[in-house]
Amino acid sequence: MNSDLILLGHGSGGRLSHQLLDELIIPTLSGTAPAARNDAALLEPVAGRLAYTTDSFVVDPVFFPGGTIGSLAVHGTVNDLAMMGARPLWLSVGLILEEGFSRNDLQLILTDMRQAAEAAGVRIVTGDTKVVPRGKADRIFITTSGIGVIEHELAIHGANARVGDAIIINGTIGDHGIAVMAGREGIKAGTGIRSDSAALNGLVAAIVAEAGDSLHVLRDPTRGGVATTIKEIAGQSAVSITLVEEALPVNPAVRGVCSLLGLDPLFVANEGKLLAFVAADAAERVLTCIRQHHLGVQAAIIGHVCEGDAGRVRMETSVGGLRAVEMLAGEQLPRIC
Amino acid sequence: MNSDLILLGHGSGGRLSHQLLDELIIPTLSGTAPAARNDAALLEPVAGRLAYTTDSFVVDPVFFPGGTIGSLAVHGTVNDLAMMGARPLWLSVGLILEEGFSRNDLQLILTDMRQAAEAAGVRIVTGDTKVVPRGKADRIFITTSGIGVIEHELAIHGANARVGDAIIINGTIGDHGIAVMAGREGIKAGTGIRSDSAALNGLVAAIVAEAGDSLHVLRDPTRGGVATTIKEIAGQSAVSITLVEEALPVNPAVRGVCSLLGLDPLFVANEGKLLAFVAADAAERVLTCIRQHHLGVQAAIIGHVCEGDAGRVRMETSVGGLRAVEMLAGEQLPRIC
Repeated sequence: MNSDLILLGHGSGGRLSHQLLDELIIPTLSGTAPAARNDAALLEPVAGRLAYTTDSFVVDPVFFPGGTIGSLAVHGTVNDLAMMGARPLWLSVGLILEEGFSRNDLQLILTDMRQAAEAAGVRIVTGDTKVVPRGKADRIFITTSGIGVIEHELAIHGANARVGDAIIINGTIGDHGIAVMAGREGIKAGTGIRSDSAALNGLVAAIVAEAGDSLHVLRDPTRGGVATTIKEIAGQSAVSITLVEEALPVNPAVRGVCSLLGLDPLFVANEGKLLAFVAADAAERVLTCIRQHHLGVQAAIIGHVCEGDAGRVRMETSVGGLRAVEMLAGEQLPRIC
Repeated sequence: MNSDLILLGHGSGGRLSHQLLDELIIPTLSGTAPAARNDAALLEPVAGRLAYTTDSFVVDPVFFPGGTIGSLAVHGTVNDLAMMGARPLWLSVGLILEEGFSRNDLQLILTDMRQAAEAAGVRIVTGDTKVVPRGKADRIFITTSGIGVIEHELAIHGANARVGDAIIINGTIGDHGIAVMAGREGIKAGTGIRSDSAALNGLVAAIVAEAGDSLHVLRDPTRGGVATTIKEIAGQSAVSITLVEEALPVNPAVRGVCSLLGLDPLFVANEGKLLAFVAADAAERVLTCIRQHHLGVQAAIIGHVCEGDAGRVRMETSVGGLRAVEMLAGEQLPRIC
């Protein structure tokens, strides 16, 4: 019996489960010794409306340039809360482990989770671990849920885009998807491309403070990329949107890998990017505010909400044409998050 | 392309994902057409402390006598909240699907989830769906998290067992574990055994109302069974506990299968049972109250907290001896929840 491996008994709820929790999972996630263990965590009272979200993470590989499945699981859930304009407070963690998974890798992933949570100012307060037999899962799946508090009265949601709004992105597109795929396939051309995975709650707080009620929509273009997210918002808000191809920030290395593989970066996943829909008269100062944040140095206005058919999205191409933008139709990069 | 199967593209975040969400997942889980979709759900304000928990479910088979992975995922999380004395309010659902999983089975499972949620009085308010390639997961894994409100000032937790407390269980032990295993292995002797999976929040509300501050600990003996849970509480509360073998309610069919397979029902999982530690002078009336509830007809006092070594658990056997009870050491029944 190799003590470096996860065993079925670690998911039994019995003695081995307790050992794994006490020796590895709880101290690594919390940074402290296990405290009283109960069926649920008690949360301190907060003033304000609460936002609540969940995401499952199945990324392959679990270690990729710029992150791990652990930090990704924290960032993804923190960002979903931030996109409601909420301040993320608490996370839960559900681990599904494959029998034979490395305890050492588990420790690295959980350490990465804790560091990501600390950096984002959120606390992991409750969790659960299951183990399935070899071949019944792929190493590790993580499901995080999160609770945040909304401390303002703004209406920030996908049905709130208005004609005239400028659409701002905080940097380059496609980095996460291409970094993960390059990591998985060992693509040499992908060397140097890193995931943009990051917690956006600090940046959102700065945007909310600067924009106030000029801020109409926030959304993170993850699976399906910028194109799918923009199309979603155009539908929810029943507006027409025009994107400007030349304005889209793309890392040249990402553009290179995309050309090589016939991918469009507009459909590739991001994990540290947001789209902010901002009233035209506030757009320049919000852009300046975003550029002053370390996660927004390459921010740009990439399009506008305009008159026209509800749900329509078009791209002004570099050669002056207009082409229709649709949602990602199938699956171009499975298990990207 | 068989339209009855889940495809990788259903996890892409693109058009297929939206179709699956709009046509199947959201209407089935919510019972209504999809409403505005945002990154997180907004929760109504509530008065009281909040409890927060999560659990992942990997049970095999996903349909078993007395339930499905869907109702189990609702009951498990509802019960974890109820064991804090909280009133469960909201659930999140993270689905991990294997490519090729049957859409029809998914619909049956989600319907079972919704019915379980409605019966328990909780709302499923947010969710996420991922799809992994064939062979990278086993059909379906579900991670639920839940939030509840604590509307009393009682201290109900695992460190609160006191010398003299009576330990009450609301019915027979081992039904869930044996039902799942019989379902999985096709054991004929298991015919007629059904999982006890049930939401315990209604029963807990009745117990809290009857017992008041005579109620010291509540816990549901799931993975690891009654033995492991009692051992946990003895450790957390630094008390000694004596169980009475003859007092343990066991369904004769469960006892039969356990004898056949060399299992001890004391270590087999339950999903609709709770252990209530109650001050001696309130024990009889709390027992009566539990027996009046449809989930407590076979309730019994199965042991007491006594003077002695902290963390020690012993069983008074039918022949009058005392034997030590330890936690489940390894894994006797993998993937029971």
